[in-house]
Amino acid sequence: MKAFAYRDRIAFDSLVEVKLPDPVPGPHDVLLRMRAAALNYRDLAIAKGDYHVAVNPPLVPLSDGAGEVIQIGTQVTRLRVGDVACPTYLPDWIEGPITPRVARRRLGGPSDGVFAELICLHEDEVVKAPSHLEAVEAATLPVTAVTAWHCLYQLGTLRPGETLVVLGSGGVSTSALQLARAGGAKVIAVTRREEHRARLQQLGATDVLLDDGSGDWPRRAVAIAEGRGAHVAMDVVGGSSLARSITATRHGGEVHLVGYAADTSATLDIFDAIRRSTVIRVASAGNRHSFEALARVFEQQEIRPAIDRIFPAARFRDAFDHLAKGGHFGKVVLSFG
Amino acid sequence: MKAFAYRDRIAFDSLVEVKLPDPVPGPHDVLLRMRAAALNYRDLAIAKGDYHVAVNPPLVPLSDGAGEVIQIGTQVTRLRVGDVACPTYLPDWIEGPITPRVARRRLGGPSDGVFAELICLHEDEVVKAPSHLEAVEAATLPVTAVTAWHCLYQLGTLRPGETLVVLGSGGVSTSALQLARAGGAKVIAVTRREEHRARLQQLGATDVLLDDGSGDWPRRAVAIAEGRGAHVAMDVVGGSSLARSITATRHGGEVHLVGYAADTSATLDIFDAIRRSTVIRVASAGNRHSFEALARVFEQQEIRPAIDRIFPAARFRDAFDHLAKGGHFGKVVLSFG
Amino acid sequence: MKAFAYRDRIAFDSLVEVKLPDPVPGPHDVLLRMRAAALNYRDLAIAKGDYHVAVNPPLVPLSDGAGEVIQIGTQVTRLRVGDVACPTYLPDWIEGPITPRVARRRLGGPSDGVFAELICLHEDEVVKAPSHLEAVEAATLPVTAVTAWHCLYQLGTLRPGETLVVLGSGGVSTSALQLARAGGAKVIAVTRREEHRARLQQLGATDVLLDDGSGDWPRRAVAIAEGRGAHVAMDVVGGSSLARSITATRHGGEVHLVGYAADTSATLDIFDAIRRSTVIRVASAGNRHSFEALARVFEQQEIRPAIDRIFPAARFRDAFDHLAKGGHFGKVVLSFG
Amino acid sequence: MKAFAYRDRIAFDSLVEVKLPDPVPGPHDVLLRMRAAALNYRDLAIAKGDYHVAVNPPLVPLSDGAGEVIQIGTQVTRLRVGDVACPTYLPDWIEGPITPRVARRRLGGPSDGVFAELICLHEDEVVKAPSHLEAVEAATLPVTAVTAWHCLYQLGTLRPGETLVVLGSGGVSTSALQLARAGGAKVIAVTRREEHRARLQQLGATDVLLDDGSGDWPRRAVAIAEGRGAHVAMDVVGGSSLARSITATRHGGEVHLVGYAADTSATLDIFDAIRRSTVIRVASAGNRHSFEALARVFEQQEIRPAIDRIFPAARFRDAFDHLAKGGHFGKVVLSFG
Repeated sequence: MKAFAYRDRIAFDSLVEVKLPDPVPGPHDVLLRMRAAALNYRDLAIAKGDYHVAVNPPLVPLSDGAGEVIQIGTQVTRLRVGDVACPTYLPDWIEGPITPRVARRRLGGPSDGVFAELICLHEDEVVKAPSHLEAVEAATLPVTAVTAWHCLYQLGTLRPGETLVVLGSGGVSTSALQLARAGGAKVIAVTRREEHRARLQQLGATDVLLDDGSGDWPRRAVAIAEGRGAHVAMDVVGGSSLARSITATRHGGEVHLVGYAADTSATLDIFDAIRRSTVIRVASAGNRHSFEALARVFEQQEIRPAIDRIFPAARFRDAFDHLAKGGHFGKVVLSFG
Repeated sequence: MKAFAYRDRIAFDSLVEVKLPDPVPGPHDVLLRMRAAALNYRDLAIAKGDYHVAVNPPLVPLSDGAGEVIQIGTQVTRLRVGDVACPTYLPDWIEGPITPRVARRRLGGPSDGVFAELICLHEDEVVKAPSHLEAVEAATLPVTAVTAWHCLYQLGTLRPGETLVVLGSGGVSTSALQLARAGGAKVIAVTRREEHRARLQQLGATDVLLDDGSGDWPRRAVAIAEGRGAHVAMDVVGGSSLARSITATRHGGEVHLVGYAADTSATLDIFDAIRRSTVIRVASAGNRHSFEALARVFEQQEIRPAIDRIFPAARFRDAFDHLAKGGHFGKVVLSFG
Repeated sequence: MKAFAYRDRIAFDSLVEVKLPDPVPGPHDVLLRMRAAALNYRDLAIAKGDYHVAVNPPLVPLSDGAGEVIQIGTQVTRLRVGDVACPTYLPDWIEGPITPRVARRRLGGPSDGVFAELICLHEDEVVKAPSHLEAVEAATLPVTAVTAWHCLYQLGTLRPGETLVVLGSGGVSTSALQLARAGGAKVIAVTRREEHRARLQQLGATDVLLDDGSGDWPRRAVAIAEGRGAHVAMDVVGGSSLARSITATRHGGEVHLVGYAADTSATLDIFDAIRRSTVIRVASAGNRHSFEALARVFEQQEIRPAIDRIFPAARFRDAFDHLAKGGHFGKVVLSFG
Repeated sequence: MKAFAYRDRIAFDSLVEVKLPDPVPGPHDVLLRMRAAALNYRDLAIAKGDYHVAVNPPLVPLSDGAGEVIQIGTQVTRLRVGDVACPTYLPDWIEGPITPRVARRRLGGPSDGVFAELICLHEDEVVKAPSHLEAVEAATLPVTAVTAWHCLYQLGTLRPGETLVVLGSGGVSTSALQLARAGGAKVIAVTRREEHRARLQQLGATDVLLDDGSGDWPRRAVAIAEGRGAHVAMDVVGGSSLARSITATRHGGEVHLVGYAADTSATLDIFDAIRRSTVIRVASAGNRHSFEALARVFEQQEIRPAIDRIFPAARFRDAFDHLAKGGHFGKVVLSFG
């Protein structure tokens, strides 16, 4: 089979097409013919050597994908041939809290990822895609949407009628927006791009605030949220954004710090946080249980993820460039055509 | 002012109209002209001397009500003249878990209730009604709807896409149904009355199961709920119903035991519950924080509570009889006209 | 190697010595030479066909045991040759909440247990024994002591200075007593046997109450516990004991229903529980994470489990009879000599 | 009666002795003759105008104190004449989570504090002191010890056998150390002063690490804590210390950020925290329920708080200077002689 891999070293110019032996499923395995993959910042960080975990070549990259089940082992019960399914990003993390044991294997680095024609996985390591989604849509779910669910509904508890703040329009923020709306919460979406306003509203944002760089948006968010602030904020930015996210939340509020778009360090004002008794959860990814819960609600409510643009797989370099440029709305996807 | 009270002893035939001095609000108080009240099983139990807390005459009965704010003290900030507001059932329980300290005062017994023309309360002891509701609707919220919210979203965590089981069509069950739907969950409503099916569906029930008395409904509920069972069940029946509610839930499920319509004792099968690691929460009522959260979501989503029938206040005996007969759908309300 | 097994059917008289091939450890496996095993009520229930999960022959029985690591696979990192280690009762339950997936395999039924000379397990399925314990002591931990830890400190949160009630002197109760004391809590031990008083005090019980069958002990427990009741009760009895355990706890208290010594159904008084907002957790067993936490605190504080009597392995029938008779204090152990 | 107060403005040189009318207890009040008070950093911050809440003169300062009950109202049930009792720092915060409503009144600013001969409080606003303590000892509890308990056992869950990291030897850290030991946990105490080593060990520290300013102590803490890190860290320093506290904790660990000794902002490394899925709780103070729980365990285990030095009340300026200089071990106390 055909795959793409970092052959000798982890660097963009080392990512090439390779020929690998076709995998043969064991009794508990499923064989997927991959249909689509989606990009994440971590793919960029890995390619540039900036990632927080050591990653070594040779490596098949990409964590997000969806494929068709074309063969199953004799003992497999969770899937059938013909299902569209997604590999889970952390294959060993089935349920419960994250632990070093289950955080070790990660598709797309340090373990081989999904940028291949065929993938063979234990049936415990895949999730059936919501049946109303195309493969290019399902491919966007495993990393960012699962992170959003896990933070909002597994680590935290967003309740109907409460208010969530999301920043920007990347995969975590757009799916957090959709999942909060699915649970009956309100969402204040903060963006630096006026041109994203309409799409954020289409996704369900109750309010869209333009961040003009003045640091003033938290004040406006508090005013909207009953003058008290949001119940939950999802920060994908880091740096001084953490302090602003805290300011936008109310007493007893919760901030999920799940990204580092601006900076890999983050700063907070202790007095401001003490006044609110803020809880900050620094986390990423989610377990299979969260993926299944998310897939259930996507299917029940026929939610479709936000896709910025779909590239043919062979044009992966253009897709990476597009992601690196920023300004996208939702996920950047590769179609295996 | 006019009120109704158990004068010499707690018994239906002792409930009579009385003349009481008009209350005068202090600086932190609000004065409500009551517009409506709603009945609860506890009112029946108190009248029959079956209630689990000692209650002594003279007593103004009824816990559920709504009125118009007609005067406020000089220091009041939470309400304005003209607002429609509901007294909270446990006036001292503002937030946090229930404790003996906050469970002592209960409107309608042992403390005076809402069956009066005028009520004067500290501003901390009332909640502004959702603005889209009539007083007869708002009057239904303080006891049963607040109990439903508190169980589903404060003690427990019903998540979008999960499944809730409710039994019958009393106030707790119908409002739990509506609140679960408001949060994006599915609801299986179990009823012994085929004639309630359509109204349960109108309220949003995803599935309605007829309980034919055979004890078979949990099996059907499990089948509907992905073959695994509901995530949460709300049991208002007691007796052997507890065991059935447990059987209807999945591994790690939660049963809220909040009523005793059939029996004040309840029995469970230990093996069945151990297999599921069931958590049983025996609770009633909720704090003001839950009431405010419920009012927020009712208002945001324009939810209207289920009302079975509205009686003029003077016909309270007919209203009590109607409740005692059973078979109602939603709340039995008294209008102060 | 030699083992004992139910050969054709699950019944005491079918439990015989058998010859099985010596297991060969794979790269991730450890090979244990078993030194001791301990009995549980579930072993009696299985032998009598009363257990709540289907169990089929041939079956090596017993869930509790300890052995010496005599060989390890090339990839093993968690243990070394010479360590004393215990198999975990539910080998797939490493961390997080119990789920159907991890509850399936159970040593001693339905999966083969520890009553064998040699056992070969994946390294993830064993826990190093506290270093100060003899094998006969370590063998008592996997089922009942892990259950006690998991209830007190994983599902619930017993805090220093709080009060726990335990019933009788079986393995769950005696280890709950010890673990509560290790965490700085007080323990009221309730017993029907005056002759157990001194040993309960030696284990650390702050108070011992004689249960004379009158149902009066909860009143005395409440009096001891600041007149308000215990914070947590551990009920291993079932039947009407559940109602008494609830009565012995205070407002907001927690009852762990973990056994069925008297009855496999249990009954509660709804009013009594509503008055307390009781949470009832029906559970058994614990994950490996709980076992490791328990082993850590046993080792740090040099706690030794209560052992009633040690029988040579060959006299397993006498040991079973001894357990069935009741009246033991702590665990009944088999030594493999 | 005599008191000390900031008369015209909040500044050290405005703190003078004043004559105030003797308070007269109402039916629910208790009258305390104050015996001792203790200082906190917030007293310094208020005096210097650095505090995070607006505070206006005239103001009786100080939050921590203990006195003898010399008179009680006719309805008082929680205390008797002759009891030694402590006012609670946030008098309205009885139980449950902190909210803006209960965080408003704070003894010592913005509300009048304890630096007075007589204090009259509602009985709900005082806690009986542990009976084995002198008034100068009890006076140290309301702010820092209650904060320590609330963080460790109310917001978080430190379990027996787990490891806590504390920094320095102020009131929060020394009482967290003692309370963790009371609950059977291990404590790594980090200090910049070699001369504090022995006293930290006397208080129960399992390990003492010298912080030489190189930023190396987290590495040593991880090594001590099973090579994985502490379960919980208590950071009273802020600034770059937050990142170090995170590094010292294990996967799934918890950091309580409760002080700002070095800086009122704090910085963390997102990658480092994501790797651990760290939860950061920024908090201060605790409710009356926590105070009572703490008093219970202090009394049961006869714990005595660490006192650095006791000054006569009249020498309050020296006491403030002594606290400002730093280097103290435990609390700085004023005795009212």
